[in-house]
Amino acid sequence: MKKILIIGAGKSSVYLIEYLLKEGLQQNWQITVVDANQANAEVRVLGYNNASALKFDVSDTAELNRLVEEHDIVVSMLPAHMHGDVAKACVSFGRHMVTASYVSDVMKSLDIEAKSKGIILLNECGLDPGIDHASAMKIIDELHAKGAKINSFKSYCGGLVAPESNTNPWGYKFSWNPRNVVLAGQNTAVFLEHGQIKHIPEDRIFAQIETIAIDGLGQFDGYANRDSLSYIPQYEVQGLKTMLRGTLRQSGFCKAWQAIRKLGLTDDRFTINNAKQFTYTTLALSFLNSKQDLKQAWKKLMGEDWDLEVETKLAYLGFFSDEPIVLEKGTPAQLLQNLLERKWQLMPEDKDMIVMQHIFEFELEGQSYRLFSSLEQQGQDQTYTAMAKTVGLPAAIATKLILMGQIKHNGLMIPTTKQLYKPLLTELESFGIAFNEKQILI
Amino acid sequence: MKKILIIGAGKSSVYLIEYLLKEGLQQNWQITVVDANQANAEVRVLGYNNASALKFDVSDTAELNRLVEEHDIVVSMLPAHMHGDVAKACVSFGRHMVTASYVSDVMKSLDIEAKSKGIILLNECGLDPGIDHASAMKIIDELHAKGAKINSFKSYCGGLVAPESNTNPWGYKFSWNPRNVVLAGQNTAVFLEHGQIKHIPEDRIFAQIETIAIDGLGQFDGYANRDSLSYIPQYEVQGLKTMLRGTLRQSGFCKAWQAIRKLGLTDDRFTINNAKQFTYTTLALSFLNSKQDLKQAWKKLMGEDWDLEVETKLAYLGFFSDEPIVLEKGTPAQLLQNLLERKWQLMPEDKDMIVMQHIFEFELEGQSYRLFSSLEQQGQDQTYTAMAKTVGLPAAIATKLILMGQIKHNGLMIPTTKQLYKPLLTELESFGIAFNEKQILI
Repeated sequence: MKKILIIGAGKSSVYLIEYLLKEGLQQNWQITVVDANQANAEVRVLGYNNASALKFDVSDTAELNRLVEEHDIVVSMLPAHMHGDVAKACVSFGRHMVTASYVSDVMKSLDIEAKSKGIILLNECGLDPGIDHASAMKIIDELHAKGAKINSFKSYCGGLVAPESNTNPWGYKFSWNPRNVVLAGQNTAVFLEHGQIKHIPEDRIFAQIETIAIDGLGQFDGYANRDSLSYIPQYEVQGLKTMLRGTLRQSGFCKAWQAIRKLGLTDDRFTINNAKQFTYTTLALSFLNSKQDLKQAWKKLMGEDWDLEVETKLAYLGFFSDEPIVLEKGTPAQLLQNLLERKWQLMPEDKDMIVMQHIFEFELEGQSYRLFSSLEQQGQDQTYTAMAKTVGLPAAIATKLILMGQIKHNGLMIPTTKQLYKPLLTELESFGIAFNEKQILI
Repeated sequence: MKKILIIGAGKSSVYLIEYLLKEGLQQNWQITVVDANQANAEVRVLGYNNASALKFDVSDTAELNRLVEEHDIVVSMLPAHMHGDVAKACVSFGRHMVTASYVSDVMKSLDIEAKSKGIILLNECGLDPGIDHASAMKIIDELHAKGAKINSFKSYCGGLVAPESNTNPWGYKFSWNPRNVVLAGQNTAVFLEHGQIKHIPEDRIFAQIETIAIDGLGQFDGYANRDSLSYIPQYEVQGLKTMLRGTLRQSGFCKAWQAIRKLGLTDDRFTINNAKQFTYTTLALSFLNSKQDLKQAWKKLMGEDWDLEVETKLAYLGFFSDEPIVLEKGTPAQLLQNLLERKWQLMPEDKDMIVMQHIFEFELEGQSYRLFSSLEQQGQDQTYTAMAKTVGLPAAIATKLILMGQIKHNGLMIPTTKQLYKPLLTELESFGIAFNEKQILI
């Protein structure tokens, strides 16, 4: 009997846990779900006799070690910066580990020991990163098998709101960690374009965007993610001239977000004490060198980057109507997040939406082609979100594949190898997670 | 016989050490100068029989403890982030400590224990912070004694180059730590203006500047420093409506620096490996969304914030002439610093210049006044700089005052108390460090 430990029973874990519980009934797996909030864990295992729920604090090293030692594989759905201690325990006791987060320096440092223990440290096995790697590698391998030469690869993904639940002017509601949304784009982006390394500093990330059209869904803003260069060796594409990974937002989102960013409201490095002395209007005005009213001063700051759409979006957040601040203190980013959590809340019946698009350009037998590969998923409601499904199922399926001995690998990995991406994508298709492809001559 | 330990014998310590050595001959002090580079320490004590020089690594805790215990007072001229361990040792062994750096959280945390041990932890006792606090508090106390009501206080200081040595279009050469210059203004500035808290985010610090005129020296750019609000309680001015601390640069500097900043070249958070694949021209171009030539694309990015003066300054640094990069790798900020260290080098015969100006506005007997209090100091050469003199002498004089028992204080302090600022300013005057005052009706 195999034993699985799942750490973290929050929003993103719904499908992950359900899949492993159901699969576990057939495969005779025993599953332990732990969370800082015991009720979160308990509600997820309700009615399953092959599972138990525990309250767990990841800083309790003794308990962490005890739990890891007792199980065969650990799935960590904790926030990314908390995986380190779990990974150390896994390597120490020789247990496999699965996460949906980017490979961290701590993970890299554990690779050699993980190899020597014969265990797998699988990371980046969610949606983005995750499904993007798997689906891109499948196309890359297929193109290479045909003898194609790939010149350009761009990949965009966004967690958005479904058209029928799109009830605010931003076209956005939170289907995942709001803090990550507020702090997005706070690093220089690095990518490859026409053979040249290109940088976009943080204050231009949301200004220097691309328009991405997706059949049936219309146009989206695409902004560049942090470091696209590091994936070139992992994707094993020789002679690639353009390589960019980016994030999708509803068309017009980035221009309005840039107004908030340029004002200074996404700063997370200093605390405003006594924050209630401000409203969101006077707080915004404090970032402007002006005694004019907020709208006029903000408009002047933005110049050509201000229009009626931007104004409407800012008005919706309450910036021009003295929206009160409810936190006692916080960084500008924390105060902004608190406001957005109210304004961009996914309501119980709301459906979220995942959109991903890969765009390849390649040459084959003297012709040049552009290949679009797109994924769209809509959620069911506030709990059964497309985000939770597309993040959780890849991690869950990979966990099954590892437990069944189908992944012959030791050490650190991401889902770019065929023995993982092939069964993963096949099974995702059975859940309706499938890409549409379109190819045109260019 | 009193014993003084001076940690750090670099550029800023020249006057400090010389003062304490000479004073020590009369007062029968024994002085130990230590530095990571023993030659730095040795050259400073040459010819003095009341001093010794040692090689010292601050990470060697046993040696640090031994040295601190052996001395009565410790002057730390280390970089600010290295004071913590020294301060802990001082508190542990009950030894006074003097620095020219801003009060850190570690210092604050040691206040209670320092009080209980009856020792002084004097910080911010250099130029800025240091002389600015002392000279401002003197004026504040005098105005209050006359019954004046102070409405506004702005204070600016800059480490510049003397007019006769001003040989580059930036009007700037390094007289202190180049890294601090490159990374300046990378935080939101907070200050008080007409009774309202104002913020300037980092990407507008060098764009939202004031013009400061100083008699006989012309006009300067003044940009806002990090946190001016925190000094309001320390200066004990009731009802202050405007409070701003800022930095001075030669007129036109900030506009050109903003072009560099906006491009993205001051980012210190990601490393460019294989940096030699770029020149400074192609590196700059990598931050622009353009295939045009660098000058045209940069100009387009800056819009109205570009002019011939900006272009001349950037050209001087080699941005338009394929200046080679000599570092193998580095953050954009490190690569920029390396370039500036060559272009803005203070040559052996160059004279630096310190400029400080306080601007008070106050009411007295029904009249409103503006009071300017200005300090100007020129250095002698590359070694005997105005920077070293104005940073080092306040720390040195304060060290003497503490050793002579003239400062009745326990725990953390900065030079805002009369018993310290009064003898300090008096003695600084004997070294020619004196303020000119000018008062006008407004």
